[in-house]
Amino acid sequence: MGKGLPSRSEDFSAWYNELVKKADLAENSSVRGCMVIKPYGFSVWEKMQSKLDSMFKESGHQNAYFPLFIPKSYLSREADHVEGFAKECAVVTHYRLKSDKEGNGVIVDPDAKLEEELIVRPTSETVIWNTYKNWVQSYRDLPILVNQWANVVRWEMRTRLFLRTSEFLWQEGHTAHETKLEAEDETIKILEIYSSFLEETMAVPVLKGIKSDNEKFAGAEETYCVEALMQDAKALQAGTSHFLGQNFAKAFDVQFVNPKGKKEYVWGTSWGVSTRLVGALIMTHSDDKGLVLPPNLAPIQVVMIPIFNSTDEYDKVVKKLEEIGKRLNKLNISFKIDDRKNHKPGWKFSEYELKGIPVRLVIGPKDIDNNTIEVARRDNLTKEVVNEENIENYVDKLLPEIQKNLFNKAKKFREANTHKADNYEEFKKIFKNQNGFVYAHWDGSSETENQIKKETKATIRCIPLDYGKETGKCILTGKKSKGMVIFGKAY
Amino acid sequence: MGKGLPSRSEDFSAWYNELVKKADLAENSSVRGCMVIKPYGFSVWEKMQSKLDSMFKESGHQNAYFPLFIPKSYLSREADHVEGFAKECAVVTHYRLKSDKEGNGVIVDPDAKLEEELIVRPTSETVIWNTYKNWVQSYRDLPILVNQWANVVRWEMRTRLFLRTSEFLWQEGHTAHETKLEAEDETIKILEIYSSFLEETMAVPVLKGIKSDNEKFAGAEETYCVEALMQDAKALQAGTSHFLGQNFAKAFDVQFVNPKGKKEYVWGTSWGVSTRLVGALIMTHSDDKGLVLPPNLAPIQVVMIPIFNSTDEYDKVVKKLEEIGKRLNKLNISFKIDDRKNHKPGWKFSEYELKGIPVRLVIGPKDIDNNTIEVARRDNLTKEVVNEENIENYVDKLLPEIQKNLFNKAKKFREANTHKADNYEEFKKIFKNQNGFVYAHWDGSSETENQIKKETKATIRCIPLDYGKETGKCILTGKKSKGMVIFGKAY
Repeated sequence: MGKGLPSRSEDFSAWYNELVKKADLAENSSVRGCMVIKPYGFSVWEKMQSKLDSMFKESGHQNAYFPLFIPKSYLSREADHVEGFAKECAVVTHYRLKSDKEGNGVIVDPDAKLEEELIVRPTSETVIWNTYKNWVQSYRDLPILVNQWANVVRWEMRTRLFLRTSEFLWQEGHTAHETKLEAEDETIKILEIYSSFLEETMAVPVLKGIKSDNEKFAGAEETYCVEALMQDAKALQAGTSHFLGQNFAKAFDVQFVNPKGKKEYVWGTSWGVSTRLVGALIMTHSDDKGLVLPPNLAPIQVVMIPIFNSTDEYDKVVKKLEEIGKRLNKLNISFKIDDRKNHKPGWKFSEYELKGIPVRLVIGPKDIDNNTIEVARRDNLTKEVVNEENIENYVDKLLPEIQKNLFNKAKKFREANTHKADNYEEFKKIFKNQNGFVYAHWDGSSETENQIKKETKATIRCIPLDYGKETGKCILTGKKSKGMVIFGKAY
Repeated sequence: MGKGLPSRSEDFSAWYNELVKKADLAENSSVRGCMVIKPYGFSVWEKMQSKLDSMFKESGHQNAYFPLFIPKSYLSREADHVEGFAKECAVVTHYRLKSDKEGNGVIVDPDAKLEEELIVRPTSETVIWNTYKNWVQSYRDLPILVNQWANVVRWEMRTRLFLRTSEFLWQEGHTAHETKLEAEDETIKILEIYSSFLEETMAVPVLKGIKSDNEKFAGAEETYCVEALMQDAKALQAGTSHFLGQNFAKAFDVQFVNPKGKKEYVWGTSWGVSTRLVGALIMTHSDDKGLVLPPNLAPIQVVMIPIFNSTDEYDKVVKKLEEIGKRLNKLNISFKIDDRKNHKPGWKFSEYELKGIPVRLVIGPKDIDNNTIEVARRDNLTKEVVNEENIENYVDKLLPEIQKNLFNKAKKFREANTHKADNYEEFKKIFKNQNGFVYAHWDGSSETENQIKKETKATIRCIPLDYGKETGKCILTGKKSKGMVIFGKAY
């Protein structure tokens, strides 16, 4: 059907943009930097939400909802935080419009100016810690394990669908604890949830680590992260979990009386993943024919297409597909029968390849006679004809196989694109020619990281969790290094 | 435990406010007019969302997401719409902050003024119809059946938790159709979904009808609504479904080519319910002891409390409750065992009464010997001792009975508070002394409705769907009336 996708090798960025639009996932809205998430794209996000939400709940978290608006003064309460977010804020200054006397629609009513401007939340630490202040008196009120699903706004100058938009959807967890250790444990627990969600549900392999000071969250003591490698060998930060220390507790005066009757500041964490994950999913698995969805996230796992030349054949074949549908249904396999007569089978094949449906089942009149069915896999584009009688169990085994194959393929790709640079020449060469994750020694200073970024566009994606085991010399300065860190060009 | 709720008869409004706070449902935030929905309150909203979402999906709707911001000029495109919403808008005028040179935190950067101001969506018709313009070319692109779950902002001067807040959560459906009839059918279909959700899931009886011109949605041809009566005999608009005609299609030039090759404007609907429903739920069922939740919406349906005097007894009793828990679990009945030792049973009883848990099970050492268990109902506060062996089936039958009883009780209350006024004296007397729903003849003019509102504070809550069957004379003007309409004092 000539979907006209550019190929990945030709122009990865154009391929991505076109794919997002042609597969009906999202589009730019007329509001600068804001996207419209179309029903098909949103159904993928809903699957992600549903799985993550159950993982949060199973680990003892509850959802709540906090205000969209943050008084401007709150943002300045934590010094690093305001530095990180002030530059990209949408600011509400007025609360009323009125008719223009000259007949040009409506104008902002100058009499309705707010005393204090409100910021549309770029993240909610400030407004939430200001609330927690009233929720916490004693150690008995801790821990608070709260998450919210919300929209946030960061005024981005250069936007890309799902990857970087001025408004995006996300979840933000905000927890409060009695001890430093408990808060640190929570930070790691969430990192594990993100990591297993990405690997098991999204089939996206990730590296876990800690951010350098340059890259950590504004207001955190430590930022833990999961990092994935896209098919263009650029790195994508997929989720972050912040150990906040007592920073926000001090900024908002959140203290509790400990079991010994002494007042202490509360320890905090915050953590989030966003609709950016949809971008990560696309750029990890999809190909030049379109989207490839892992079965665990596909809104429709199986599409069934009838082949027929007459009404009689049509009736027989569709009846058979409906019967198979009932059997799939019993195994909780989601499916769609595309029995439209005004589209040719070939057109439908392309359409569902573009949409990334994991499995395609096709039955024609001969199959009815032979008790056969054609099974096509979206992940490796193979086809085979199998016995129809047991097809539901066949598919039930095939789906996890596809899920696993996608993960393994992505992992192999990452391994093939992970390098070690022993000196700066090698390092520069890699980032000139091929990108990827590059392990290299670094002296631990922000200046060195900045210099490397300036010269190569590569930044430290993360400091591995086992950092410190193998000392060496910084590739740029030759100074002592405590261990290798992982560089990459970041989305 | 002395929860200290005011009684409903004493001060209904204070009772409501205190109950919302003490039952941990929500609280006012430090941001004017915006609430914090606390975990327990949010879990009730989540149950509502989940049920409604499945009803929307079963009837063919899909979710999507549209921008939070609306360019100011969009709002003026539909003449009635801008009249209705301009007065209560949060307006974004700037996109950056900067450090104050005098050291007072951050200030709005005057260089970052938007060319066109953005409105935080009070409702999304404008931005969505502007998007649909690009989605619709031919009749084959119709219908569009889309819903979004979102936050919206209407700058309210007088706010009340759940009932009227500047920011609230809601769902807004926006559909586009080929014919007038199809759009009208959709409007009614949604009205039926709202009505059955309220009656069957929330146990809140509703009247269905049409809004008068004074009360209809700004930009709609007709607004259908479901109206409920609260325990103070005031009326609450619980949901609205708007037939938009071609108003927004014309304002945003959304046309399609019909099967005959001719261009036509698309027909539209929009419809929504919000977190206000949580307020309706509370004010319909709850009592002076606290919240009363219908089993179909209770996040926890059964609470189990052990009675014990020794560690030995504690172990035995808790073990028995855990065993019962497993049996409840098999029947998908949600439960919680409160086995805390630092609170007395009486304290726990009050606590779960306040929280509205439908069923309480209590076991003490004597019950173990006798194979008995005490069952207490939250709806009518009765208790009985029953055989423990079959308790899971007992509870499984009891829950729908409680659900039904709550609905019947509310319906009886509404019937007892529904009146007919044959003349204006009677009408005024009712609204002076007792409120309620009042059927009365009306001449159909906005002036008359305004006059009645001015004198009695009562407005037309809805025009019944069977309006027009019984003519008469307007209670105010004596002019001809096509039928009785339903008046009430509205929340």
